Amino acid sequence: MLSNSLGPLSPQRPVAIEAVAVAPSRLPAVVRTDLVAALGADAVRDDDISRARRAGGQSYSDLIRRRRGDTSDAPDAVLLPATTEAVTEVLRICSEAKVAVITWGGGTSVVGGLEAIAGDCVAVVALDLSRLDRLKSVDHLSRTATFEPGIRTPAAEAALAAHGLSLGHVPQSFERASLGGYVVTRSSGQASSGRGRIDDMVLGLRLATPIGELDLPTMPGSAAGPDLRRLVLGSEGTLGIVTEVTLRVRPTPEVTRYEAWAADGWETGQRLMRRLAQDGPKPDVLRLSDADETAVSLAMSGTTGLKKRAMDTWLRTRGITTPCLVILGFEGSRADVRHRRREVRRIVRSESAAPLGAGAGNSWAHNRFSGAYLRDTLLDTGVLAETLETATTWSQLGGLYDGVRTALQDTLTRNGKAPLVGCHISHVYPAGASLYFTVLAAAETGAELEQWAAAKHAANAAIVAAHGTASHHHAVGTAHRDVVLADLGGDGQVGVTALRAVKNALDPAGILNPGKLLPS
Amino acid sequence: MLSNSLGPLSPQRPVAIEAVAVAPSRLPAVVRTDLVAALGADAVRDDDISRARRAGGQSYSDLIRRRRGDTSDAPDAVLLPATTEAVTEVLRICSEAKVAVITWGGGTSVVGGLEAIAGDCVAVVALDLSRLDRLKSVDHLSRTATFEPGIRTPAAEAALAAHGLSLGHVPQSFERASLGGYVVTRSSGQASSGRGRIDDMVLGLRLATPIGELDLPTMPGSAAGPDLRRLVLGSEGTLGIVTEVTLRVRPTPEVTRYEAWAADGWETGQRLMRRLAQDGPKPDVLRLSDADETAVSLAMSGTTGLKKRAMDTWLRTRGITTPCLVILGFEGSRADVRHRRREVRRIVRSESAAPLGAGAGNSWAHNRFSGAYLRDTLLDTGVLAETLETATTWSQLGGLYDGVRTALQDTLTRNGKAPLVGCHISHVYPAGASLYFTVLAAAETGAELEQWAAAKHAANAAIVAAHGTASHHHAVGTAHRDVVLADLGGDGQVGVTALRAVKNALDPAGILNPGKLLPS
Repeated sequence: MLSNSLGPLSPQRPVAIEAVAVAPSRLPAVVRTDLVAALGADAVRDDDISRARRAGGQSYSDLIRRRRGDTSDAPDAVLLPATTEAVTEVLRICSEAKVAVITWGGGTSVVGGLEAIAGDCVAVVALDLSRLDRLKSVDHLSRTATFEPGIRTPAAEAALAAHGLSLGHVPQSFERASLGGYVVTRSSGQASSGRGRIDDMVLGLRLATPIGELDLPTMPGSAAGPDLRRLVLGSEGTLGIVTEVTLRVRPTPEVTRYEAWAADGWETGQRLMRRLAQDGPKPDVLRLSDADETAVSLAMSGTTGLKKRAMDTWLRTRGITTPCLVILGFEGSRADVRHRRREVRRIVRSESAAPLGAGAGNSWAHNRFSGAYLRDTLLDTGVLAETLETATTWSQLGGLYDGVRTALQDTLTRNGKAPLVGCHISHVYPAGASLYFTVLAAAETGAELEQWAAAKHAANAAIVAAHGTASHHHAVGTAHRDVVLADLGGDGQVGVTALRAVKNALDPAGILNPGKLLPS
Repeated sequence: MLSNSLGPLSPQRPVAIEAVAVAPSRLPAVVRTDLVAALGADAVRDDDISRARRAGGQSYSDLIRRRRGDTSDAPDAVLLPATTEAVTEVLRICSEAKVAVITWGGGTSVVGGLEAIAGDCVAVVALDLSRLDRLKSVDHLSRTATFEPGIRTPAAEAALAAHGLSLGHVPQSFERASLGGYVVTRSSGQASSGRGRIDDMVLGLRLATPIGELDLPTMPGSAAGPDLRRLVLGSEGTLGIVTEVTLRVRPTPEVTRYEAWAADGWETGQRLMRRLAQDGPKPDVLRLSDADETAVSLAMSGTTGLKKRAMDTWLRTRGITTPCLVILGFEGSRADVRHRRREVRRIVRSESAAPLGAGAGNSWAHNRFSGAYLRDTLLDTGVLAETLETATTWSQLGGLYDGVRTALQDTLTRNGKAPLVGCHISHVYPAGASLYFTVLAAAETGAELEQWAAAKHAANAAIVAAHGTASHHHAVGTAHRDVVLADLGGDGQVGVTALRAVKNALDPAGILNPGKLLPS
């Protein structure tokens, strides 16, 4: 299907990680000695494999570079502190020696947040938090749990399950991403309609900075000055290292129910999303695919040929000519799910959507993390596969959708072959929604980075022109540095001045994740 | 009742405002000339009455000072800009001349946020925003509305009602407070269970600062760096002047229902609040008074003597010996209110609460703003009348309640006469709740300020000791400057450094509301 649609594809093999040559480490020997003294030899790694494994994150560009064996963005060393005190020691040593520190959680950044940019530092270390991976405490009465930052989501959920509790933060990176990573990138999970963004779940945290610790207490609500938690949320490792976070948790859901529906067209589907977001009751998961993404989803789930024609015929009898997939998910107590589901289905039916059943819903839930892994296969096949996302108000959503779609299609069409551009609404709010685009095109062998850079540049420009945000849930990193100005306030100068002032005050040596977040 | 309970009272008469002598204005003549040139003569007031009317806010101490005719905290002039450009001009002129600027909205600060402290400035002006009072635009599809900052809540609601919309932010200061004031003090309304804090309603804003404008776009959700809206929320006029704010609005509720119940004791009532906050469905208004506040409320609503004995007897037949008043309020569509009300009542009954009926609920709603006005009468009678509030997690709430209550009782007991200290839970969250204390005591004539300062000092210390926040919804001002450190992160030094860095960057001349928010 892909070569029919995208044109001839040139399969590519990645260079094996063992065959990758990494440049000699620039870490000064004296700094290495200090770090070994502070952390132990086992926690200071500068072998090629350890360094190559921390060369960038999971963006298409990161993958292409690593597949080529290009590890120019490998850090000079990898540090594995096991205590908060060790993190503090790293900050002290690196501040004195002017060594850049990139915080490493699950390594799933898709916005270049992990690029080992030295800036004006003499070397770069990746501060890998994977040994800080404990559930530290649970407050059952207040329904909060305190974690170390390096714990990955499956481990966090397993630890909570022993207490009958659940976090319920489920982004596509669920299996690898860390809780600390969610906090500093302002993540949003697939159940955000019910559970909210990570921003809404953070009640307290500790941040190690080069000038000392910021220990923000666990508080349900406060008017005691600006909420500094929100300054850490989205700070992307530029202000300090989150060493502990206290999050809202809930009882393990009694039941989870997923189901799929087909709405007739993107406009109708959007109205349905908006009604549910504004007037409720809201499902916990609420997603809408446009017609193109729906077609690809159906094809990938085996609905092709005769099966496809039968489905189309059945949908036409229901008045649906342009099916747009709707996913609804409900999690909670039996009574709550029963009530919400009944009400939501009533509203869904009032928009003339057709039920595709629990099977299709469960299939979505079953495959909810698979897209990221599928990408490796697509890249092997010679396909450019990347995603990007944004958000805006409901009244501006149509313009944003059209603008970004056109930009991607125009820049990626080659020899009359257009890319496949699918889009879904992945997160809804009373005031608006996010748009998540998936792009598939024939990769230009040898010029993959330039090909995607041109498309990303055009998409970024379209987002700014249509009043979208530079990122709804993946952060700024390097990918959005030059389009974040509007989000930071008009021409961005006052906002950038404010953030730079905080940065300079907390990180006077300028070692924390240089070249990220703030415009160049 | 009060003199029986509190001991002999000495009635006091306030000095008439016309009789108040205000110190000569310190505003340099050349600055006055510049301001008149920029704003027009009508917008620059330095007559005694205009200045005396802006001498402080609505705290007990503010009232006592004004009643004595002490206007030492009157600003040197009052400015009434009518445009954003005029606000910008004021900031330019005052930055150059080193004149402090106190932003004045509704004048309802109860934490000393409006004290005309000059700091190291040569004079102080009150920047009164009452002429910036328009609803600028409505986005029906996205359910947002953009306001100028000086509009008071009743006018805002009236303007929205013409569009079939409502804000639903209803603090006790509703009738006088301004929308801009809510934003910079992180206000929370009586319907916060349903509508959320003002923090959750702000989607975009414009802030005029001495170095330029911060124009944060209207965005439903974003991961494009730290949310700078949250840096403005709670900034208390120290970083800039909010000149426009875009807020979430909702359709005018089809129905509003209030009702009152009696829970048996504070512990049972707390458990009820917690269950509703954590598992829902939540009423829009959810409040619980302790036994002492319940007794005063009943007395004030005329439930005394025989009526009181009849009610006590009836409650005892329901198993209630220590009645604690529960207020439930529901606002929304008919179907939504019906569903939530049915579920909530089921949960309320499962905690053995007894229904006091819609009459008692409506009586609460009818009198919801009257407490603030009643204070003038109490002060005339010789009663110290003040409130204070805090919040913490559910697991720490009992300790916070006991600590603050004891502190207030111990410091205000004189000659064997204890003060009346009532408390209610006014705002609930899944993780915790706020406590709102009301204190009545016999005022110490001539030493009212010292009497209250001692009690406030003890209450503040108790709040810090019990892990409460310095303020849940009234901000820091001058009243909480010395107890805000814990909220700002451990010993507060990193948090204070961060905020000071932003302050110095945006307000290099240091003219914006000196002496507030940040610790001295």
